[in-house]
Amino acid sequence: MLTSDINKNELFLGIDGGGTKCKAIVVNRDNAILGTGISGPGNPLHGFEQAANSIEESAKLALADAGLQHIALHEIPAGVGLAGVNLPVLYKQMNEWLHPFKEMYLATDLLIACLGAHQGEYGAVMITGTGSCGFAHVDDDVFMLGGHGFPHGDKGSGAWTGFQAAKQVLLSLDQLIPATALTPKLLAHLKVNNAVEMVEVIAGKPAAFFAEFARDVYEAARAGDDIARAIVQEGAGYISQLARKLLTKNPPRISLIGGLTPVITPWLDADVQETLSAPLSPPEMGSVIYARQQQAKQSKIS
Amino acid sequence: MLTSDINKNELFLGIDGGGTKCKAIVVNRDNAILGTGISGPGNPLHGFEQAANSIEESAKLALADAGLQHIALHEIPAGVGLAGVNLPVLYKQMNEWLHPFKEMYLATDLLIACLGAHQGEYGAVMITGTGSCGFAHVDDDVFMLGGHGFPHGDKGSGAWTGFQAAKQVLLSLDQLIPATALTPKLLAHLKVNNAVEMVEVIAGKPAAFFAEFARDVYEAARAGDDIARAIVQEGAGYISQLARKLLTKNPPRISLIGGLTPVITPWLDADVQETLSAPLSPPEMGSVIYARQQQAKQSKIS
Repeated sequence: MLTSDINKNELFLGIDGGGTKCKAIVVNRDNAILGTGISGPGNPLHGFEQAANSIEESAKLALADAGLQHIALHEIPAGVGLAGVNLPVLYKQMNEWLHPFKEMYLATDLLIACLGAHQGEYGAVMITGTGSCGFAHVDDDVFMLGGHGFPHGDKGSGAWTGFQAAKQVLLSLDQLIPATALTPKLLAHLKVNNAVEMVEVIAGKPAAFFAEFARDVYEAARAGDDIARAIVQEGAGYISQLARKLLTKNPPRISLIGGLTPVITPWLDADVQETLSAPLSPPEMGSVIYARQQQAKQSKIS
Repeated sequence: MLTSDINKNELFLGIDGGGTKCKAIVVNRDNAILGTGISGPGNPLHGFEQAANSIEESAKLALADAGLQHIALHEIPAGVGLAGVNLPVLYKQMNEWLHPFKEMYLATDLLIACLGAHQGEYGAVMITGTGSCGFAHVDDDVFMLGGHGFPHGDKGSGAWTGFQAAKQVLLSLDQLIPATALTPKLLAHLKVNNAVEMVEVIAGKPAAFFAEFARDVYEAARAGDDIARAIVQEGAGYISQLARKLLTKNPPRISLIGGLTPVITPWLDADVQETLSAPLSPPEMGSVIYARQQQAKQSKIS
């Protein structure tokens, strides 16, 4: 398909603004992805300016990637899913943004993830990436579970997993619990030799720092490491609990998404594993779906 | 005793510089406390200037409290115990300080606490205040245990206790565990109504914030609250473990000190409780004792 064949009135932008990066896609009338763009943090929790810039930049990169740089953002409607806009103050701020799009349809990161996973149909998702949470979208209602943030919440997430490992390794370095293979593994990962050096490196670090060690914990657990197994079992147990709670809302489908999905799935309770359906499309496609749904509703009303 | 009877050559200052306040005493030749002064944070971990100012201010306040404001700091030797100076870089910085005293004898907060608790003799201490740690001082050797800081370490401390409570209360608000009396108790303490408001209030808060709720957790545990009991048992279990580990160093005496002492003691293992001796004097007196010991050593050498 030549880019000259593109009817710009049929294009849609879908944007997923997360804490570490903002991802945009531009799609045609059939939701086929024509181009993709990735920029910096797009989460207004960490600053409005930064989020606004990242959203705009990712969208421009997606257009350029599609060879559509001659089309301006104000010619295309955009669905924008953002972490944090469940908080009224942030929703208001982002919604009042003098955005560069033809229209902007704003939703939470959870809603677009859920719409993406279930192709616009009702359903539920558990997310286990750097953070963790559960979300159900049934009968026009939404239900959130967990997702309270690091280090007080987000059990079962990558950050939680790495942080639990750090705490246990410190106990082992004090010889208050037996050390396992996890202790030298974490010291090597952090490039430190002892507890004092380790504390200097980990003190005050954000969620993403601890999430970097999560896959090593899962690898150790698979190899039978006692400390790692206990952490992984507790984390997966929590995600299984989230699933059970979400299933009480009777979602037609339920999916597990986020970076830990492949490694945590085998540790979930067997009956929970059986209920899981593979996500059908990524969150940024959920943003497109959301925008189309909202546009259709509005044209029905008017 | 009239202040005119005071021989200023026999006076000593003892200072305990902690994370929230700096405490100073001025004592006579018999270590009788003539005056006390309290100022702001005296911990160089949070800034050299602030620590230096707090130390000087607390000392001046102690002299004024004793009616000795006509005596200048440079006429009196001082023992100064500070958190953080176990780190070489902070020790060097504080030791190179152009301090206002006749002489300054610098030690860690743990060593002065231990010397105070055991009147200058060898011994061991567990500290459970905002933070927690163990320390033994035997045969001119020191041994540190725990004390890795919040939120990754300091198990059994006030901050850890309050933080564990916050995590469990969030799980109960998501109905993932049964709520107990601790849930309304913490919500009332934080002046919030639900999980979203609670997270807004607790996110990113320092150790001292969570420590403020520790006594409520102990009170709930005494009243039989399941969640509180589990937290308190785990925390006290850790302090018992610290005690056992310290006892392997054969200290002549072992004491528990810090703000949680009265409430945590009944939860320690019975055999650990039996080994505990009451501290003989506070950390700031430990600073005086340390300074006198160092002065005596130096006069022996010269």
